[in-house]
Amino acid sequence: MASMTETARGVVLRSFNEPLSIEEAEIPNAGPGAVVVKVTHGGICGTDVHLHHGNLPIPIPVILGHEGIGVIQQLGEGVTTDFAGTLIKEGDAVAWMSSIPCGHCYWCVIEHERTLCESRKVYGINQSFDVWPKLSGSWADAIYLQPGSTIFKLPDGVTPEQAIALGCAGPTAVHGVLDIVKVNVGDTVVVQGSGPVGLAAAMYAHFSGAAKVIVVGGPASRLALAKEIGVGDVHFDIFDGSTVEERLKLILAETPNGRGADVVLECTGVPKAVPEGFEMARKNGRYLVLGQYTDRGEVPINPHIITKKQLSVYGSWTFGEPHYQKYINTLPKLSERFQLERLVTPYPLADANRAMTDMASGNVMKPVLIAN
Amino acid sequence: MASMTETARGVVLRSFNEPLSIEEAEIPNAGPGAVVVKVTHGGICGTDVHLHHGNLPIPIPVILGHEGIGVIQQLGEGVTTDFAGTLIKEGDAVAWMSSIPCGHCYWCVIEHERTLCESRKVYGINQSFDVWPKLSGSWADAIYLQPGSTIFKLPDGVTPEQAIALGCAGPTAVHGVLDIVKVNVGDTVVVQGSGPVGLAAAMYAHFSGAAKVIVVGGPASRLALAKEIGVGDVHFDIFDGSTVEERLKLILAETPNGRGADVVLECTGVPKAVPEGFEMARKNGRYLVLGQYTDRGEVPINPHIITKKQLSVYGSWTFGEPHYQKYINTLPKLSERFQLERLVTPYPLADANRAMTDMASGNVMKPVLIAN
Amino acid sequence: MASMTETARGVVLRSFNEPLSIEEAEIPNAGPGAVVVKVTHGGICGTDVHLHHGNLPIPIPVILGHEGIGVIQQLGEGVTTDFAGTLIKEGDAVAWMSSIPCGHCYWCVIEHERTLCESRKVYGINQSFDVWPKLSGSWADAIYLQPGSTIFKLPDGVTPEQAIALGCAGPTAVHGVLDIVKVNVGDTVVVQGSGPVGLAAAMYAHFSGAAKVIVVGGPASRLALAKEIGVGDVHFDIFDGSTVEERLKLILAETPNGRGADVVLECTGVPKAVPEGFEMARKNGRYLVLGQYTDRGEVPINPHIITKKQLSVYGSWTFGEPHYQKYINTLPKLSERFQLERLVTPYPLADANRAMTDMASGNVMKPVLIAN
Amino acid sequence: MASMTETARGVVLRSFNEPLSIEEAEIPNAGPGAVVVKVTHGGICGTDVHLHHGNLPIPIPVILGHEGIGVIQQLGEGVTTDFAGTLIKEGDAVAWMSSIPCGHCYWCVIEHERTLCESRKVYGINQSFDVWPKLSGSWADAIYLQPGSTIFKLPDGVTPEQAIALGCAGPTAVHGVLDIVKVNVGDTVVVQGSGPVGLAAAMYAHFSGAAKVIVVGGPASRLALAKEIGVGDVHFDIFDGSTVEERLKLILAETPNGRGADVVLECTGVPKAVPEGFEMARKNGRYLVLGQYTDRGEVPINPHIITKKQLSVYGSWTFGEPHYQKYINTLPKLSERFQLERLVTPYPLADANRAMTDMASGNVMKPVLIAN
Repeated sequence: MASMTETARGVVLRSFNEPLSIEEAEIPNAGPGAVVVKVTHGGICGTDVHLHHGNLPIPIPVILGHEGIGVIQQLGEGVTTDFAGTLIKEGDAVAWMSSIPCGHCYWCVIEHERTLCESRKVYGINQSFDVWPKLSGSWADAIYLQPGSTIFKLPDGVTPEQAIALGCAGPTAVHGVLDIVKVNVGDTVVVQGSGPVGLAAAMYAHFSGAAKVIVVGGPASRLALAKEIGVGDVHFDIFDGSTVEERLKLILAETPNGRGADVVLECTGVPKAVPEGFEMARKNGRYLVLGQYTDRGEVPINPHIITKKQLSVYGSWTFGEPHYQKYINTLPKLSERFQLERLVTPYPLADANRAMTDMASGNVMKPVLIAN
Repeated sequence: MASMTETARGVVLRSFNEPLSIEEAEIPNAGPGAVVVKVTHGGICGTDVHLHHGNLPIPIPVILGHEGIGVIQQLGEGVTTDFAGTLIKEGDAVAWMSSIPCGHCYWCVIEHERTLCESRKVYGINQSFDVWPKLSGSWADAIYLQPGSTIFKLPDGVTPEQAIALGCAGPTAVHGVLDIVKVNVGDTVVVQGSGPVGLAAAMYAHFSGAAKVIVVGGPASRLALAKEIGVGDVHFDIFDGSTVEERLKLILAETPNGRGADVVLECTGVPKAVPEGFEMARKNGRYLVLGQYTDRGEVPINPHIITKKQLSVYGSWTFGEPHYQKYINTLPKLSERFQLERLVTPYPLADANRAMTDMASGNVMKPVLIAN
Repeated sequence: MASMTETARGVVLRSFNEPLSIEEAEIPNAGPGAVVVKVTHGGICGTDVHLHHGNLPIPIPVILGHEGIGVIQQLGEGVTTDFAGTLIKEGDAVAWMSSIPCGHCYWCVIEHERTLCESRKVYGINQSFDVWPKLSGSWADAIYLQPGSTIFKLPDGVTPEQAIALGCAGPTAVHGVLDIVKVNVGDTVVVQGSGPVGLAAAMYAHFSGAAKVIVVGGPASRLALAKEIGVGDVHFDIFDGSTVEERLKLILAETPNGRGADVVLECTGVPKAVPEGFEMARKNGRYLVLGQYTDRGEVPINPHIITKKQLSVYGSWTFGEPHYQKYINTLPKLSERFQLERLVTPYPLADANRAMTDMASGNVMKPVLIAN
Repeated sequence: MASMTETARGVVLRSFNEPLSIEEAEIPNAGPGAVVVKVTHGGICGTDVHLHHGNLPIPIPVILGHEGIGVIQQLGEGVTTDFAGTLIKEGDAVAWMSSIPCGHCYWCVIEHERTLCESRKVYGINQSFDVWPKLSGSWADAIYLQPGSTIFKLPDGVTPEQAIALGCAGPTAVHGVLDIVKVNVGDTVVVQGSGPVGLAAAMYAHFSGAAKVIVVGGPASRLALAKEIGVGDVHFDIFDGSTVEERLKLILAETPNGRGADVVLECTGVPKAVPEGFEMARKNGRYLVLGQYTDRGEVPINPHIITKKQLSVYGSWTFGEPHYQKYINTLPKLSERFQLERLVTPYPLADANRAMTDMASGNVMKPVLIAN
């Protein structure tokens, strides 16, 4: 089923802080090893707002969108299965990892941290709209997935809405929570932040057998949604007027003997959350700095706390194939347990600018552009 | 050899920031499970300066001295061996761990972090001179080691000077470097700080098979001494007039492909060393906050660095029995390889105030009070 | 409420392989730090059968019973809380750890493996009935819990039946599954064995977020019970007439891409299960030898498999305080999810011999002696 | 510098158990990404004897030789640096990893165990002499290193003799000892086996800061050589006429308090060494099964030992790029400390059959074929 001269719309970032434009490009035929996908759902993530503001160094013009779900339009020569070895065919619903590590550098081969590969390609971020195949972001009618892309058929019973609901926050939480800081059965866990990363982190803390998951976030609407879909055992609203000290006292009272949490997962993106979170951890506790993806500057921190409490503080940077695969594999149980689809607010592709405005305001949890 | 009405001198802290006084107390007979030791060497540590300034909450009056070497004067009933099971007798040279954890609390039993025990007794720090047996610090002619003390006979061939040379920095480095952050064979290691903790950390990095140990410290005299006794492969003087940026550039040039160090060991006690050190670590590197024993306040830190570089940052708080035993067990090889005795500057017990002044000035590496 | 000259019955093992006898002993007053408990439930474990047969070296006569639940009859001086710090009083339902490690040896202090302490006391196993306080096993009307015992008040909402249902298999599984081999979210896990240890191991594998738990055991009645209470996702009956090879093929077909299980938990006590289980693990997989508590002799094993598959094979020996505390803390969720009480078959204390016979035959999962 | 119609000799295995033949093949020009190397040293390893006997499934005919050192004859287009990023040019002495993992499979990408890649190419083992470029083993005048090969320039000051001396045992030991079982500073280590793998393992145990390395091997000549070059602190000859029990007693007496070794490294290839070695490990000790590369069949093992002693038993299969790179990086210190060159016995390429006979007899430690 070749797609001769068909074209696709894409949402293009041409100038930072200017409205995004809808532009058209030809859909190429899928070359050997490549896959052309009709995008159905393109997720919007907090990072997209930062990209729009020019806070991260990226080439423009670029079709945005590093989260996506779609159906296979054309399989290139030699492509018969997804990354896990499952047979795929035209019409199958698939998800794909946004990045393609080089596979040859120190980080890919020696350090086994493909997420740190310095020359990895990232759909929707560093693939220019001026360069063939142009359709390299998910906010579009179609995307051209290059050879080497990590593609997964959606697991049986998982809808595209469920699969897009956490967006890149899902595999990001897998990396940080399951692979790096690790939550053990019986742990008391504090999650700072109630956006997609915070909710995803809390979900995986539940899955890891946490005895109690305490979500500290806001605004109230997000916490209410978290409660409704079963995320978190206890919830604190940081906008409820209480002071940091008052809140800390209440949070510690929720931990065994008031000792503090075994694990604290920072998922806020706000620098001052880090020293505040250190106070919530027990001695010999673990702290994950997961939310500081964008450089928001310095904050006063007392390093004596790290020594005295003997904390282990871990950073975690995006995700690699193992985390994405685990995210896909856990989607059925995530969907079954947490009503993921309720996180999604759909927008027509053409309304990308409005969706971005809503995302920036924090009024919606996960805006998703619907293309096809 | 009972000690009837014998008395011992002790260096007593009665008022913060006032000169220490030499006072006398009766040497008790060793009760069941206890050991009376004639102290020969009482080490002075940077923490003693902080104690003197009242920077840590301790009871006064107190005989200072949490580092000591001495010879057994009297074994209490039931004491026949040291902690390792080696037979001991009067006249044997011994070292002892400064603290006695309670053995029953959450930290001792569940968490297995006896160093975090909140009711542990610490010789020379929290054992009042007003309370029997009074002689509970090592800056004295004698010390009464209570039942439950962790005592080790000095290994064959190790002199008291060698055994006291690192003081509590030795087991502190064992805990942080060997037990927590871990240095692997082939690692490039930066050590921030060239005081006793820095040197001890560097020594254990060498022992762990580090490919290169880069010592960043000062003043020049300390670095010169480090070089002379074989500690560190490369040395940077932080007082040489170069800027932080210039120094960072030179340090990174000493690491493989300029990537940064695999492990950075902070041993300075200066808060601003921490953000500076984060810059020296490679992505996915490990950072140990070992030197921030005293609360010296906040410093601006950018938590984005922890996420982006995917750092693991570990605190380590003093030490427990496993670390002290490993320190004692490695003393023969430490002494053989590093001329430990050259770190020591001896002072008569009566000159404790002068020794403290020299310690505070940083002119000496390890002042040691010689009692007997 | 002192218990003057009250006596208690106990089930005493006087001669190996002879019927157990019911004997009486005086209930002592609780001394300082001790607690006298009216036993309500005394669990019978497979090890008790081995003890009865003289397969392990123990002193006789001894009141058997290392699993128990009861209500506090008398608190000794100084006892106001349980091990976790919760206030306790007469009449409270409690559980206690069977062993009291010495707290001073290499294993307790240096290695932090109190389960390996060579001089630990174990109720129901190495505390002679000829020695005061005589009542040192749980198959009795009362037990005298010495100072140093690890006692926990039953969590709210947990019944004694639920608390005794897994017996020592509960904390044993915590130690092996959560602490040693570790099951990660998304793992495919095979459990060999469907007795109490196997079921407990499977439960904790579920709690750890296993994607699939495959139980391989028998007889059919035990597997049916496992299914009914929600333990295991797939079940294989080793007595169904299939060969080892046929079964292996079916088991591997249940693992991702037929690669084998990420983790295999051996909980059988049968030596030949080990080489069979090695075949079920994937390359780079983990294998836990949890069930070989009793010496049942050698079995042919090909060590080439360990190298070629790059297996990690772990032993785990009983449990210590951290595992027992975690077991108690997870009891509410275990009870909520798995209908633990259905594992229990009650017997009057006087019918201990009949209960032992039933246990040896494998007809019951967990016989429990009901005393009060 | 193109090599037009130059030919190279190679030692070809055409029929199992028949003499190897010297055959000629044309040296191809180096294609893009490839490197042609003039082999100077081709190491012979115990596995080659097994290959010769047909004990492992390989394609024949094949030029043997998976260990090699040579000088670059021609760099293919695009090749300017070695794997570590060091500039390379014709005439440079280089070493190369024997295998090329696929880089795309579950083992390479998800599990990060490229050593388990099932489609990896291995020079000297699974690259047929019948297939272009034919010159794919190191027992030859030249080898054609395909694109994707992991090549390292020899570190300054390291001679080819030193670099070939441990052969594949070097990186194999890095994988097993440094990466998997891990030796800590202060550990008492037993090494079973005194062939190249045993010596390499012992060397890395020394580098890791072992307090004592006990080598248990033979024949006497190998142990004498180990002693002379500084490998091992204590040596036991398994052919000295003592029984297994007598030897075990002496070995345990060399461990702290007779508890057994912290770590035992099996490097023998003899199945019965495994149960014997379990007896040498202390409780809670670690055991590495490194030597069972070839399937030599079953041996009776009592799995109760694994449970009761709470052992951790690890397999380790060959090595990947991280281990090979660490091996190359540690060569300077290995060479400086251990006189590696003394392990080598040189043979002309044409005497490959004689060298194989000597290897099989155990009379030489590391026979090396000298081609150019």
